[in-house]
Amino acid sequence: MKKSALQKARLAYQPKLPIALTSSLKMVEGKPTQSVADQEKIKELFPNTYGLPELRFEKDTASPKGGKPVNVGVILSGGQAPGGHNVISGLFDGIKRIHRDSRLFGFLMGPGGLVDHKYIELTSAIIDEYRNTGGFDIIGSGRTKLERKEQFDKALEILKELNIKAVVIIGGDDSNTNAAVLAEYYKSINAGVQVIGCPKTIDGDLKNDMIETSFGFDTATKVYSELIGNIECDCNSAKKYWHFIKLMGRSASHIALECALQTQPNVCIISEEVEAKNMTLDDVVNYIADIVAARAADGNNYGTVLIPEGLIEFIPAIKKLIAELNNVIAEHADDIAGIDTEKLPEYIKAHISAENAATLNSLPDDVARQLMLDRDPHGNVQVSLIETEKLLSNMVGKRLAAMKEEGKYVGKFAAQHHFFGYEGRCAAPSNFDTDYCYALGYNAACLVYAGVTGYMSSVRNLVKPAVQWICGGIPITMMMNIERRNGADKPVIQKALVRLDGKPFLKFADQRDKWAVNTCYVYPGPIQYFGPAEVCDQPSMTLKYEHEGK
Amino acid sequence: MKKSALQKARLAYQPKLPIALTSSLKMVEGKPTQSVADQEKIKELFPNTYGLPELRFEKDTASPKGGKPVNVGVILSGGQAPGGHNVISGLFDGIKRIHRDSRLFGFLMGPGGLVDHKYIELTSAIIDEYRNTGGFDIIGSGRTKLERKEQFDKALEILKELNIKAVVIIGGDDSNTNAAVLAEYYKSINAGVQVIGCPKTIDGDLKNDMIETSFGFDTATKVYSELIGNIECDCNSAKKYWHFIKLMGRSASHIALECALQTQPNVCIISEEVEAKNMTLDDVVNYIADIVAARAADGNNYGTVLIPEGLIEFIPAIKKLIAELNNVIAEHADDIAGIDTEKLPEYIKAHISAENAATLNSLPDDVARQLMLDRDPHGNVQVSLIETEKLLSNMVGKRLAAMKEEGKYVGKFAAQHHFFGYEGRCAAPSNFDTDYCYALGYNAACLVYAGVTGYMSSVRNLVKPAVQWICGGIPITMMMNIERRNGADKPVIQKALVRLDGKPFLKFADQRDKWAVNTCYVYPGPIQYFGPAEVCDQPSMTLKYEHEGK
Repeated sequence: MKKSALQKARLAYQPKLPIALTSSLKMVEGKPTQSVADQEKIKELFPNTYGLPELRFEKDTASPKGGKPVNVGVILSGGQAPGGHNVISGLFDGIKRIHRDSRLFGFLMGPGGLVDHKYIELTSAIIDEYRNTGGFDIIGSGRTKLERKEQFDKALEILKELNIKAVVIIGGDDSNTNAAVLAEYYKSINAGVQVIGCPKTIDGDLKNDMIETSFGFDTATKVYSELIGNIECDCNSAKKYWHFIKLMGRSASHIALECALQTQPNVCIISEEVEAKNMTLDDVVNYIADIVAARAADGNNYGTVLIPEGLIEFIPAIKKLIAELNNVIAEHADDIAGIDTEKLPEYIKAHISAENAATLNSLPDDVARQLMLDRDPHGNVQVSLIETEKLLSNMVGKRLAAMKEEGKYVGKFAAQHHFFGYEGRCAAPSNFDTDYCYALGYNAACLVYAGVTGYMSSVRNLVKPAVQWICGGIPITMMMNIERRNGADKPVIQKALVRLDGKPFLKFADQRDKWAVNTCYVYPGPIQYFGPAEVCDQPSMTLKYEHEGK
Repeated sequence: MKKSALQKARLAYQPKLPIALTSSLKMVEGKPTQSVADQEKIKELFPNTYGLPELRFEKDTASPKGGKPVNVGVILSGGQAPGGHNVISGLFDGIKRIHRDSRLFGFLMGPGGLVDHKYIELTSAIIDEYRNTGGFDIIGSGRTKLERKEQFDKALEILKELNIKAVVIIGGDDSNTNAAVLAEYYKSINAGVQVIGCPKTIDGDLKNDMIETSFGFDTATKVYSELIGNIECDCNSAKKYWHFIKLMGRSASHIALECALQTQPNVCIISEEVEAKNMTLDDVVNYIADIVAARAADGNNYGTVLIPEGLIEFIPAIKKLIAELNNVIAEHADDIAGIDTEKLPEYIKAHISAENAATLNSLPDDVARQLMLDRDPHGNVQVSLIETEKLLSNMVGKRLAAMKEEGKYVGKFAAQHHFFGYEGRCAAPSNFDTDYCYALGYNAACLVYAGVTGYMSSVRNLVKPAVQWICGGIPITMMMNIERRNGADKPVIQKALVRLDGKPFLKFADQRDKWAVNTCYVYPGPIQYFGPAEVCDQPSMTLKYEHEGK
């Protein structure tokens, strides 16, 4: 494929590597670890990989030891995130440093490629085409879940055939959970295959004390912040629209929060706060409408509102409603199949609790119908199809009309809507993600060399310059707890939601009232690669605030 | 307002100025000009400003002549475009070079500020805050049309009060048309106020032999191309969606065409071609569906489609339908006001021609209803509200279902939708727009110094380095013709549509079949300011191709 001028220029970039990885290194073992919760159950489920020590690589003064060639497989799992190619190029360079005859195999289109034996060898000619570029197109990605013994056994066939000693799975919380299960299984049967995870997701919800951030979050939020800043600037020039901007990010509101810190909009809703305060949809609408009215009182009939993708599911009343709808639909599947679509709403309302029926009736007609009628392939309500940005602006408009009649609002309200997600998942990685991902991959090679399994590649101290980053491995079981999924208890990596007592949220909460009424927009502009460090080499504000003073 | 790191770094950028403007200059007069069409009528309407000569500034070997202080007013008119602040800073520096006591006044929120006497003085402290930044927020913009004598007289009061010798209007084709009318009027009454226009619009439809491009087009198309490239990369990584992307740009398809040249999508519709080929909406749908099917036959169930904002109005059958709908609605306004909304479609269908009724019936229900029921404040059909990207993907989906039954299509079709417009209008200007706008403003100051009126600031030879750019003035009347607007003949600047015999379109047309079936995406990435010239200093491909070999 034809490369753009920027891609060509970026191919020459040499990612900065932490000092610990630049020469001969030694592995330092920490203390045995425990899972974050449900220790007994997790231990029982992972008898071979539970309680492993944290690992840390340090520079060794001894001269480098020669290694043997090693064959490694790599998988990109789940949604795209900027920097994936650099995890792979770091891994490639890392295993080549162990021995020049080491080989890297890429399984195609996600974990499915491993199970179905679809792969390519990633030679230096291929790797060199993709260094420092965005996207997962080098081998593609997919959402097949590695969960069953048959899959593991099928995968082992090809791993053995290719003499692969280790598989590196680049994925989010679910994919890394599956990596841990796979590691445990291969260990239990002495398969001789290590499994190493790498923390990927733009959503920023895979982090904990040892994993400071998942890769891709930095770049994606910078792309969204570029666009939000551009829209704010338009907003402040034309002074006639309220822009409602929905942001990808699944359940957690990390993306919305980071973008708010970057761009200082008039409103940013944080789902975790909505849930904690037990707010209704009307509460959220009133909160926004009051800010619109306050600005209008100053003659400012314009503004910017950020909305996290997962909001609807965090509104307790709607959460309850959805849960009951899913149950009712499942229980009465046969009845429902025989009922005319037009009569279905009536039927459903008759079968849910009075409280949930009231919630349903409080929603705009089209949203209520969507909740009742649209199903995903598993028969569940499709919350992600709800255009929350339009729903909210529509309800705010109605609320303002009522306020106008009550004499509480004088102004004009016209809205524009945006949804940003796909725009940022495959962006060219920022310098931060370029370096971080390369280090994650290179570090994964060191974990392979160390012969360990069930570990996640860990690169920390990320607010410092790359040379000072701390590298090592964290047992994946350490991040796990037991959660109820599809009616069964499952060991899973705890998803990191926005902490309302965390510094990023507190910094936001401290300033938002000022941002609401005044116009305090910041226009970050596009990601830069070649300019001054204060422009090109800044980590996310979330990361900065989380580690401020540490 | 708080500045981002990029904004701070950009404040220090010194725009490159054409050599002709860097020292003492002389004005060279060309031959008298004629309007592009309707010469007699235009001449009659502009007796004082018709037939003026083209002007060109050249470097003078004589030592600079001292000028007198001059007060100038400036207006940002219409939609935002990246670089507006630099036109103003160039103008400011230009009049300061004439004399350090020259003063610049900015009229607020567009032409309305001139009529309503709302303004601020733009001091160096203010100007320095906005150099090289995006947006029109320095003085705001607006869409008030300067058309009536009362407005002109009212404006003259404040111009006289502030001792303003010249007004610079930064706007698109309509605003520059109004600038010409204002220039003519002030000349006719010997008001002693010059009027100078500057070519602004992201849409790229204000250009001709002497105006190579309007400012903002370069930056906006680069921002959209960044996003399209990111989406293409996602598309090529996940391999499961067809992305339908609508692009702003009013009637003309310049933006879609430029973005297609930059990013090489599978499909790009050019409205001008749809009209020239007398295509129906079904023809457009079939064209896309055939490409989806051809890719699916190769196992590629994904792709990217670019759609120009103005498409619907260019489909001849729909154009006819809209025209008749507008007439019928106007003629039967009283009847219609008394009819129940539910019965209105029936009434309307009974009052339009059989041909147009057939067109209406061929459209999806919701679009047909929208055309019949939604009105703008003037009672016209609101074409811009139609979500063409969803309409097309919906119709393509139906067409594919039919093709599947006929055995002509085997594959999966899932769509995602995007609309980019506000994301690019206020972006930080590219180096090209930064330099071009500064030169346009500086050059406008030279035209003020030259004492001329009714001219547009012209900076040409734009594919060459900035030092070689050619500067001067073009009589606005030269770009005019007579067009029918709201039932009356009006002199207007001819809108530049995409020329189907022009090189940009021919280059596209030559490659599109290859792009359709193969995956030839290009990922331009974000605009860069500090890197190598091949990344940072490239004009648009439209401009390059239009001037190739010249």
